Amino acid sequence: MDNQEMAEPLVYRRVLLTVDEDDNTSSERAFRYATTVAHDYDAPLGICSVLESEDINIFDSLTPSKLREKRAHVEAVVAKYVQLAEQKGVQNVQPLVYEGGDVDDVILDRVIPDFKPDLLVTGADTQFPHSKIAGAIGPRLAKKAPISVIVVR
Amino acid sequence: MDNQEMAEPLVYRRVLLTVDEDDNTSSERAFRYATTVAHDYDAPLGICSVLESEDINIFDSLTPSKLREKRAHVEAVVAKYVQLAEQKGVQNVQPLVYEGGDVDDVILDRVIPDFKPDLLVTGADTQFPHSKIAGAIGPRLAKKAPISVIVVR
Repeated sequence: MDNQEMAEPLVYRRVLLTVDEDDNTSSERAFRYATTVAHDYDAPLGICSVLESEDINIFDSLTPSKLREKRAHVEAVVAKYVQLAEQKGVQNVQPLVYEGGDVDDVILDRVIPDFKPDLLVTGADTQFPHSKIAGAIGPRLAKKAPISVIVVR
Repeated sequence: MDNQEMAEPLVYRRVLLTVDEDDNTSSERAFRYATTVAHDYDAPLGICSVLESEDINIFDSLTPSKLREKRAHVEAVVAKYVQLAEQKGVQNVQPLVYEGGDVDDVILDRVIPDFKPDLLVTGADTQFPHSKIAGAIGPRLAKKAPISVIVVR
């Protein structure tokens, strides 16, 4: 190992937090961790949620008004987190609301390339309703993402 | 969500770093991240490696001298990381060398209950040679551990 290199601190400079619509404990703790890091190291914070276009059940999926309602709800959730982060003193917070077919793909192929974070923060129980892949996104992204991932409990 | 609660910082107070014997890039970065957190937040740091008793191939497994040699090697690797962490100014660093049948089980059932970390840090490529379960331990522990897990890249 290179001792010189190893002696350098490792600090994350751009933090991406994924949030779902549920206020579960791990999502709250993920928010608290992401805002602590962004605050203490003066890092820009992106707060991201994904509206899965195929998220809505077959009876609702063709109604534009239902989709608008759902989109407005996700935007409101993200806006609320952004506001709370700003109240905690994080200087640079960006809402990132995306739509697409599969939440993992949207985060990996669009959100990460767009926002260019070096750390992704997610709650252990963060998952998206009606996602085609069941279960929490954290461990999957910890495996597949090209950047560091923290799964918060 | 409880806005009062959400406004609290979330800081990790006991950090557990897992290291393997390879000096791959993600292990080095995991070390740098763990020592940065332990230094900046004055947290005790445990540096852990697991010697899998069934790690050694069938021809070597019955030789006590081979096992001693292997154990001494793992202890030396951990001691080296401990020394580097102390050189970086981390105040409280503990070497944690364990032996057992399966590295995931050893970490989940023995190391975490003993050291009581609230954050586990692991490199994305950290894996143990000849482990019965192939692949990096990080995403598996991110799923199974009762504490927060960061997979560092």
